[in-house]
Amino acid sequence: MIKTINMAEKLGRFQGHWSPKIVAELNDSYVKFAKLKGEFVWHKHDDEDELFLVVRGNLMIRLRDGDLHVGEGELVVIPRGVEHLPVADEEVQVLLIEPKTTLNTGNLRNERTVEKLEWI
Amino acid sequence: MIKTINMAEKLGRFQGHWSPKIVAELNDSYVKFAKLKGEFVWHKHDDEDELFLVVRGNLMIRLRDGDLHVGEGELVVIPRGVEHLPVADEEVQVLLIEPKTTLNTGNLRNERTVEKLEWI
Repeated sequence: MIKTINMAEKLGRFQGHWSPKIVAELNDSYVKFAKLKGEFVWHKHDDEDELFLVVRGNLMIRLRDGDLHVGEGELVVIPRGVEHLPVADEEVQVLLIEPKTTLNTGNLRNERTVEKLEWI
Repeated sequence: MIKTINMAEKLGRFQGHWSPKIVAELNDSYVKFAKLKGEFVWHKHDDEDELFLVVRGNLMIRLRDGDLHVGEGELVVIPRGVEHLPVADEEVQVLLIEPKTTLNTGNLRNERTVEKLEWI
């Protein structure tokens, strides 16, 4: 059964930060939504490019050679191997697309790692 | 050089309908923008799932067993093998994500086929 996904409705279904939820499969990737607030951890994904699309709010992605600002209605692809640190002064709501194998903390496993993602 | 992509700005760079433009690479896929108006052709993609995210307007996707309505701020994944017919009564602006191998007309090659996609 193919269903239309309303971004605002899905984002209204959960509260926690830094814990992406899966909403769809797309080839070898998942489409996810997440709410971000505060500072994450520096990490990279060795073999996976990662798309961030900001649905609401303003996201800063720090890179080793500068900062990227991703505002509402903007997107960015962080290529594999590039260290990045997402930072959200206020809550940001994002759509993420990345391979099913992607761990949220990339090359690290720590207390921020979400081992098993939930579907909503 | 990693750059933030503003959806409205990219969509302002071209006019034609049914001719997707590439804005980014994401693993084995392209991220594209397209403007749609009128009725396309029934087609399917045998090996590729396709994501439609409506940035502006209202898209109807006819399936053999019913119609899907995809409004502004909504997305849908059309799984591989599923015949579909996009229809836009008024102009619709969409973000598309699909494998680099995907032909816009899927299993068909006809006058609507765009053989070489342009980057914007």
